[in-house]
Amino acid sequence: MNFEAEEKKIGNLYATDLLPQNLENLDETRLFLQGFAQFLIQYIQDENNRDNKVLDFHQPSELLRKLDLKIPENPMNLSQLLQSCNEVLKYCVKTGHPRFFNQIPCGLDLISMAGEWLTATVNTNMFTYEVASVFILMEQEILRTMMNLIGWTPHEGDGIFTPGGSIANLYAMNSARYYGFPQIKSSGMSFMPKLCAFTSEDSHYSIKSAAAVCGIGTDNCFPIKTDEYGRMIPSALEQEIIRCKKEGFHPFFVCATAGTTVYGAFDPLNGIADVCEKYGLWLHVDAAWGGGLLLSPEYRHKLSGIERANSITWDPHKLMGVTLQCSACFIRHKDLLLKTNQMSADYLFQQDKCYDVRYDTGDKAMQCGRRNDVFKLWLMWRSKGMEGFRHQINRCIDLAKYFTNKIKNTKGFEMVDPHPEFLNICFWYVPESIRCLRPEEKYSLLSKVTPKIKAKMMERGTTMVSYQQDKHRPNFFRMIISNQATTRDDLDFLIEEIINIGKDLIMEHLEIA
Amino acid sequence: MNFEAEEKKIGNLYATDLLPQNLENLDETRLFLQGFAQFLIQYIQDENNRDNKVLDFHQPSELLRKLDLKIPENPMNLSQLLQSCNEVLKYCVKTGHPRFFNQIPCGLDLISMAGEWLTATVNTNMFTYEVASVFILMEQEILRTMMNLIGWTPHEGDGIFTPGGSIANLYAMNSARYYGFPQIKSSGMSFMPKLCAFTSEDSHYSIKSAAAVCGIGTDNCFPIKTDEYGRMIPSALEQEIIRCKKEGFHPFFVCATAGTTVYGAFDPLNGIADVCEKYGLWLHVDAAWGGGLLLSPEYRHKLSGIERANSITWDPHKLMGVTLQCSACFIRHKDLLLKTNQMSADYLFQQDKCYDVRYDTGDKAMQCGRRNDVFKLWLMWRSKGMEGFRHQINRCIDLAKYFTNKIKNTKGFEMVDPHPEFLNICFWYVPESIRCLRPEEKYSLLSKVTPKIKAKMMERGTTMVSYQQDKHRPNFFRMIISNQATTRDDLDFLIEEIINIGKDLIMEHLEIA
Repeated sequence: MNFEAEEKKIGNLYATDLLPQNLENLDETRLFLQGFAQFLIQYIQDENNRDNKVLDFHQPSELLRKLDLKIPENPMNLSQLLQSCNEVLKYCVKTGHPRFFNQIPCGLDLISMAGEWLTATVNTNMFTYEVASVFILMEQEILRTMMNLIGWTPHEGDGIFTPGGSIANLYAMNSARYYGFPQIKSSGMSFMPKLCAFTSEDSHYSIKSAAAVCGIGTDNCFPIKTDEYGRMIPSALEQEIIRCKKEGFHPFFVCATAGTTVYGAFDPLNGIADVCEKYGLWLHVDAAWGGGLLLSPEYRHKLSGIERANSITWDPHKLMGVTLQCSACFIRHKDLLLKTNQMSADYLFQQDKCYDVRYDTGDKAMQCGRRNDVFKLWLMWRSKGMEGFRHQINRCIDLAKYFTNKIKNTKGFEMVDPHPEFLNICFWYVPESIRCLRPEEKYSLLSKVTPKIKAKMMERGTTMVSYQQDKHRPNFFRMIISNQATTRDDLDFLIEEIINIGKDLIMEHLEIA
Repeated sequence: MNFEAEEKKIGNLYATDLLPQNLENLDETRLFLQGFAQFLIQYIQDENNRDNKVLDFHQPSELLRKLDLKIPENPMNLSQLLQSCNEVLKYCVKTGHPRFFNQIPCGLDLISMAGEWLTATVNTNMFTYEVASVFILMEQEILRTMMNLIGWTPHEGDGIFTPGGSIANLYAMNSARYYGFPQIKSSGMSFMPKLCAFTSEDSHYSIKSAAAVCGIGTDNCFPIKTDEYGRMIPSALEQEIIRCKKEGFHPFFVCATAGTTVYGAFDPLNGIADVCEKYGLWLHVDAAWGGGLLLSPEYRHKLSGIERANSITWDPHKLMGVTLQCSACFIRHKDLLLKTNQMSADYLFQQDKCYDVRYDTGDKAMQCGRRNDVFKLWLMWRSKGMEGFRHQINRCIDLAKYFTNKIKNTKGFEMVDPHPEFLNICFWYVPESIRCLRPEEKYSLLSKVTPKIKAKMMERGTTMVSYQQDKHRPNFFRMIISNQATTRDDLDFLIEEIINIGKDLIMEHLEIA
């Protein structure tokens, strides 16, 4: 709260006393916004202080009692608004804290954040060149830079920023369908052959979701077997394609994943591309998480073959650390995005404008109004250069190796995949008291131990890491290393915290069991 | 550019010299962000100064020559980054300028903008309560407040914030299909009866787009006739339903529009709801633009009957003036959003967490990661209270009446719809030299005159208003009054500017003709 001395009188003002309603109050407007920025800067400093908690957890009912969220009948003054913000910030999870490891996107890049501040201030809608001129050109430049990293020539493909990777996957599936069966756009799928798609059983659920939305059906999105740690088996894909064809399906879409959600596995893209070419199928690569590796000359080989894809999802808000949302979908067929999504709404996208209307992007989007998600990425990328991103990403990989090593060498920890190939490290903590049990007993207890440790961790608020089970294994932790703030000490801290919590919990837990 | 005196040395630093990478440089981080905020505040002040232009227009090729958009190999320092921002801001369209009337969302609400600054700073992903606790509760509170304004009881419906109104319409159509034909989610649409949907010929193109994406097909989304100024004719809807049924279609979805894009027309909701009830069809109301009128006791009658809808799209980033993006989709069937979109991805939405997982919203969204679009709306709403929004919206209507009156009484202007019912005012400017021509000659010239005036207006950069043609009428201007910064003088200015430009242009134009 930064309303002292002369700012006291600002606090008694109302929003309508500021710009744009009140042009007299330039100074007051400036003071309020400066104070607001100062208040956010303080939050950032606190978030980066390791003495502070990652979260102050409360059950929903409890938090509802603590907070006043109601919309009042009459306006609140500026001081009351800042008070409201203060309350909110107190309870919100510090996702930029160096010990926040809970999600694939972790951390806060300050240049990207500043970019978002500017984006909010200019409040631009990306649908036409006439209102978004600079940002349209910037979007083209960034999409070209990304396509170049993918390995496509500038004239080969097209791309668009989308609200998240799931919607990018939907764009891709819809484009693939249009490519193979353009008549579906106008005539629909009734009386059409039964289309089917393939994706690994470890892929993101948004592929199935896209099949549901598109009217293809989740049952017709066939899961392909993966190896022990989540990589699609190309021969299994081929067998499934053959089976489906025999049964009268029309296969049209294969999704390979570059960086799965749980294990961070990379499907063998060349092997899958070979199968797709053999059967004439569209290859989509969901590189939402792994795409950022293309920025690292040392590790981009994991995506080898990606240039053979027909479409790609790549979320800069994941590995690259851009603030939410920043996702892109690429299609390696010039004009296909436009043909797929175009509704030719002349009343919005007039063809007789005073500039080349091919710069208007509205008609190639599934949305109409579209947020400016490119500016923050552009500014952040300039702040790092190609070199800086390479360094940032390689540093994450180094930290992941350090953490893996540490887990392997710390008593009580067991790796789920002993050779993680990316930034997801999956492991169990096995409390001493159950280490000597038979495997099935141990595993049955671990399925309860892991959530208990997580619950206690949230209660203590010191760090946050995610957990889940998979088809064969009981609940395990999934560590993600993508937070630029994180150091080796923070990784050590997590390990010790788990030991401390696990130690206490288990006795009590075993008594119940 | 605010890097003077002591800030000089800040400018030579790089992003990696600040938080979170460098904890020593707290002061430098603070100074940089304060400087950045100051720089944005200056932009806001300039934007609100009527002596400054709305835009500095350049053709794409020209702008590309003026700007350096390339991503460098090496990082740029903080001073160079600010320089980049400066360049960008110079050429970007000032959408918050009091004389920007080009889009349905116009203007910049500073509290909403401050809310976006905070949103960017906390960088929260909305999919689970564990990371988004406060914002999940806030979203529920705001959705309830909005449902209450719609006229639904708190337990009647459900809602979700979506990335724009088009995606909200897609959510609605997908939910309607699930409601009527739940098996399509898993089995797809092949061999299914031919579903069809209905929407007015003046509705937004995203309804057709949703039909394309869903695999229903744009040809099976039948346009219903409207009256002269864009209101759907319920009897025409009924006839079309009967015809489709006879032809073997399965009608399932009707979209009524509350506030059309061009004329701002309100479809007669009760009449349409009667037809929907008679034939057992899902009624969706696309109130993306008009929904905000629910906040005005004086004008909410225009949406009378909206409470009978099965689903509703309402974009607070339109009439309410929230910064982009802020859209919501409401479904009047508890649990239907969840059932429609749920993919039960246990690896993300674990069921054995330490809190009531019904607070996790991830499984009822079409997206996985989801941006926090509610905070800025909540903060802005608190800054106004119910009373302030009522005032803001009524003020827009008053300005629209003033402008309509002025257009009617200014020589050379002709109304397209003489009785606009909302904030869209459609009109022609007819230069003196062609006023006495026969109607067909006059109209043929107007189709060229309007874009010419718009082009010149952009070149002068003094104001911006949109134009389009419709099925019967040549290019006309579509004025939108939704900018909180706008006063009567700004409306007078637009009229005079059009006269000035039109006067000069026409002679030259007629010579060509």
